Order: sequence, then structure tokens, then C-alpha cells
Amino acid sequence: MKRKELTIYLQRIFENHNLSRKHSKISAKYLVKAELIEAKSHGVARLKMYCDRIKKGLINPKPKIKIKKLSTSIFHINADNSIGFVAADLGIQYAIKSAKKNGIGLVAIKKSGHYGLSSFYAEQAVKKKLVVFCFTNAPPALAPHGAKKSLFGTNPICFGAPTGKVPFLFDTSVSIINRGKIRRADKLGLKIPFGVALNKKGKITTNAKQALLGTQIPIAGYKGSGLAWMVDILSGVLTGSSHGGKTKDPFDNFSGPQNVGHLFITINPSFFSGNNFIKEMQENIRLVKKLPKAKGFSSIMYPGERKNKIYKKNLNKDISIPSKILKEMKDLNVIK
Amino acid sequence: MKRKELTIYLQRIFENHNLSRKHSKISAKYLVKAELIEAKSHGVARLKMYCDRIKKGLINPKPKIKIKKLSTSIFHINADNSIGFVAADLGIQYAIKSAKKNGIGLVAIKKSGHYGLSSFYAEQAVKKKLVVFCFTNAPPALAPHGAKKSLFGTNPICFGAPTGKVPFLFDTSVSIINRGKIRRADKLGLKIPFGVALNKKGKITTNAKQALLGTQIPIAGYKGSGLAWMVDILSGVLTGSSHGGKTKDPFDNFSGPQNVGHLFITINPSFFSGNNFIKEMQENIRLVKKLPKAKGFSSIMYPGERKNKIYKKNLNKDISIPSKILKEMKDLNVIK
Repeated sequence: MKRKELTIYLQRIFENHNLSRKHSKISAKYLVKAELIEAKSHGVARLKMYCDRIKKGLINPKPKIKIKKLSTSIFHINADNSIGFVAADLGIQYAIKSAKKNGIGLVAIKKSGHYGLSSFYAEQAVKKKLVVFCFTNAPPALAPHGAKKSLFGTNPICFGAPTGKVPFLFDTSVSIINRGKIRRADKLGLKIPFGVALNKKGKITTNAKQALLGTQIPIAGYKGSGLAWMVDILSGVLTGSSHGGKTKDPFDNFSGPQNVGHLFITINPSFFSGNNFIKEMQENIRLVKKLPKAKGFSSIMYPGERKNKIYKKNLNKDISIPSKILKEMKDLNVIK
Repeated sequence: MKRKELTIYLQRIFENHNLSRKHSKISAKYLVKAELIEAKSHGVARLKMYCDRIKKGLINPKPKIKIKKLSTSIFHINADNSIGFVAADLGIQYAIKSAKKNGIGLVAIKKSGHYGLSSFYAEQAVKKKLVVFCFTNAPPALAPHGAKKSLFGTNPICFGAPTGKVPFLFDTSVSIINRGKIRRADKLGLKIPFGVALNKKGKITTNAKQALLGTQIPIAGYKGSGLAWMVDILSGVLTGSSHGGKTKDPFDNFSGPQNVGHLFITINPSFFSGNNFIKEMQENIRLVKKLPKAKGFSSIMYPGERKNKIYKKNLNKDISIPSKILKEMKDLNVIK
């Protein structure tokens, strides 16, 4: 399916599920964006989950989103259990506006849901020449250091900076691989790599289903565990959202809304030295790129570059959708 | 040597090296603090390095520190090549004041030097009930992902949050072990662990000297490399300091001042929900601590707890100093 066709198709499905035209458009846009950058685990593979949660009243299709200004640069948003895309899309606009005007912005969002990739929102700030952090928490997937049961989510850390060219966009989970990849492997009957997850008994497993029931392994032991905890505090505790393992898994837990939290921090480098930041960023990248290459590398890329290439390559190509997911989409399209 | 005796001793050495009484006091305090938390690599083992750089005119003993207010919540400090402790000690006060008043503070410091541990400054913000980030860059020690030569520093990430009890203080380098530990091993003729560093030829080495000439290994491959790059942008590019591998190694490179950058971000959680943050932090910690323990663990600690215990244990004990370093201290004490 071509990008535009898929966008309209998804938009219609969301509208059929009672989302406003505007919210349907936003949600469809981000799902397609995930497909275009080949973040397949965050694309149409999640459509059914979102629709199921809307049908069960766990995502609010007509949210009354409340925005509270707490100080010159701080906003607190109650997303009223909107689909995550919508709350985050709104939040990043406030964070951008604040940093443009005041040099810094902080937007804390509570009562939200899974919002796709953090880099979607970071990229928007970077395109406005801002430095940005995006944090969000996620359902239990990682055991804290010293525990044998999952509690933290894969809690991504996302950081962006303008370069004058392709945005610097570093977006990483603190688990060895993304949970979405394991979910997709489970859905499509594929194996997962060795050494990234444990089964319920604490043994390494390559079976996706066993991994989902067990625990994913954080990067770098206590360091990854500490980073996950940091993100739980920033996006869970500080925003007034769920935390400490209480974030509901959108796929498995239908006992209530997810209550995910997001935290966006934007910084305007032009307050420091006008356009000098871009110049220095280019020098920084030049210095890294000219280093002697390690075996197997013909060039050194900065975070965001590879995804940007993939995006451009795919922009006018057919988006391939596994038949299992295509069927889901067709079923969802005939609801009303 | 007892804590107080050591503090006075170090203070006198700094005064002998032309630091003001106030700056000598600050610098001595942080070196002793490193000893008390057994961060031996950041304690008196560094004294000679600081003094050497002062004598060579690379640390300015009488800096004219300039503080520029860029907006309600942003300050830019030119440290005029002061000893790092002094600039950072001043900067965190501004960050604290701003967050207390405006909910958020950002302090960028340029032309500074090695400031000990980030957690020293984060702790001060946490004690004022603030959430805090501290970033600083460091001399080349890690190869960017895809390169075979060091460029990034071990660039620590430090995050703090109040708990109502012992501060939550997560402070980690993005290398598998701290460079200071390798330096200290080199100084004392000890081996380093297997798998944390490569020699010049790209082979794993346990020889500290070989490791210092080679490259340290970042945590989690491209993820650790991305985190190091993020810190280089935040504390180097954004602050207007050295970056891209230009930060001078304080031990080896006497061709000019280090020009290290620091970035502090403070957030006041009481703007969101009064005292609720502390209550939720305690609930968060309770939920983690009650998880079933992994093999070999009798309890789960949060970041900062262990160091706090060590600090309290050592507070009134003798601080043991290796004879080699004691001799350095004696030599430095007779300069004038």
C-alpha cells in the first residue's frame, strides 16, 4: 500500500472508532511514519491494540484534554486518557513554543497512552532548531538490578539536536532490544536473538512468548536499571502518572486505562550564541566522521541519520504489510 | 588521617597554590567527599594533577567568573578556567535558586575543568527537594560506534530526585568502568578487569597503562556511544566549551586549559503537586524493594543508597591514603 492510501485507510478506521477527524489524522500519520522508518513494531502491528482499547473504553476517543500553565516555562497536561499520539502531539507544540520564547520549556503529560516513538516528537522540536529530551514510561518489562521480576518498562531515552541538516535523533530503549520487536516476533512466529531476554524461570530464551512472560535484560546491568528507574521517575512520578510497575500493558491488561506519562524538555540553543550552535554541531559531527573506521564500517553515522535514509528511501515505495495484519485492518474497517 | 585534618591539610595546599581561601575550602571539601564515599579515583589521587595545572597556568587560581542571565530560568557562566569544583559549586546554586522560584533552572558552564563527581552537585539540588540532571564532558576515552579511535569522554550522566530520606542519586559513566579507576590502577600498579578496555591495537587488555593509551569500551555498543555523544552535545556544544574530542586530558595534556563544560537542569516537583512527589517517590521505592530478590541479593537498593551508607560509615573513620599519594601531598605542602 502506498503511504497516502495507507494514511487515509488508517484515518478512516480511527474515525470509525469515534476519534475526531483531527485525532484520527494525527494517529494515522504517526502509525505510517513508524512504517516508513521501518519501526515495524510501532506501526500497523499496533492498530488492533489501539482499536481494542477504544472499544473497551480504555482509550477515550473524545478526550477533554486540560492544559495547566504552572510557570513561565512549565505546562502540565491531563490527557484524559486520549490516544497517546494526540496528547504527545499537543504537548510537544507547547514545549516548542515555550523554548522559542523563554529559552526552555517543560511539558509533563499524565493520563496518556502509548505514543509510538519518542523520536516523532523530538524531531518536531529539532526542526524548530531546539535541543530536546523526550521521556515516556512503559509497562513492566525489565527487572530492577537485584530483583528477579519485571517492574520497569523498556523506558526509552530520546535526545535530539539540530545540525542544520538531518536531525541528530538519539532514541533508545534501555533494554537490549525493544519490547515491540519481541511482540512482533511473537505475532509473526519468529525467534528473538540469544541473550536479550529471560523466561519466567530466569533462563535465557529465544522464544518470543516465553520472553514476554519473563523479563527482558537491561543494557549494562545496574546502569541500564538505573536509567530505567530515572525515566520512571521523570515520566511517571513527576507527571503524576502510573509508575513503579503500575503502567498497564496495552496488549494484555484491559483492567483500566494505561495512564502513561510523558515528559518533554526543550532548550533553545540560540539563547546562548545565536547560530553558533549549528556551526559547532557540524564541526562536532565532522570530527567524529573523519575518525579511522572500525572493522566492518565504511562510515560513521550519527544517531538519526540511518533512520532518515530509510525514511527517504521508503517515502514513495509500497509499504508491505504482513497478511495477518492486513486481515486485522480489514476487520477493523467494517466495524460501523 | 581524619576527615577534618585532611580537609585543612588540602585547603592549605590549595592556598599555597594561590587559590583564595574560599576556593581552597570548596576544592578541599569535594576531594575529601570523594574519599569518604570511597570514590578513590576522584579524591586525593587527583591533588597533584590539580596543583600541576595551577602551577603551569592552566587552571586559573584567581578566576573572574562571569554570570550571564539569558532568560528567567537560564544562566550562562564563563568560569574563566577556574578549578572545576568552584565553577560547578557556584553553578548549582543558580540552578537551585531558579528552580525554587520558576519551577525550572538551566545553568550552562563553559571554560571549566574537572569537577569531581556529578553527584556532589546533584545532591545539593536534591536536598533542596529538586529533581536534577548534571552533565559534564571529559577527555577522549571512548571510540564512537564505528570508529577505532577514542573521541568521547566517559561523559557521565547524573540524575537526582528527592525521596524524603536518602537522596536518589544515579551517577554513571557511559563506559563500562570509570576512567579514574584505570588511572588509579595505573598509578598503583594494579590490573584492570577483563573486557573493559582495548589496547592501541584494538585487543582487550587488563594492563592499565595500555588501556589508557587505547580505548575504553562503552556500555551497550551503539547505545552507550549515543549517550556519550548526547552528553558531549549538552555539556560541550551547547555550553560553548570544548567538544568532539578537544577536551584536554588533565593528566597528560598541558597544551592549554581543559575547557570542560557542565550543564545543570533543575526541576521543582512541588510546582506539579505540592508534596505529592515525595509521597509517590516513597511508594515507587517501596514497590521496587518488595520485589522477589535475584540470586545473591538480600535487598534491592536504589541509586545513591549504597554510597550514602559508605559515607556515613567513613565519616568519623581514618581516611587511608596510599603512601605514594601521601608523599605527593607532603611535597605539595612545602611549595611556598
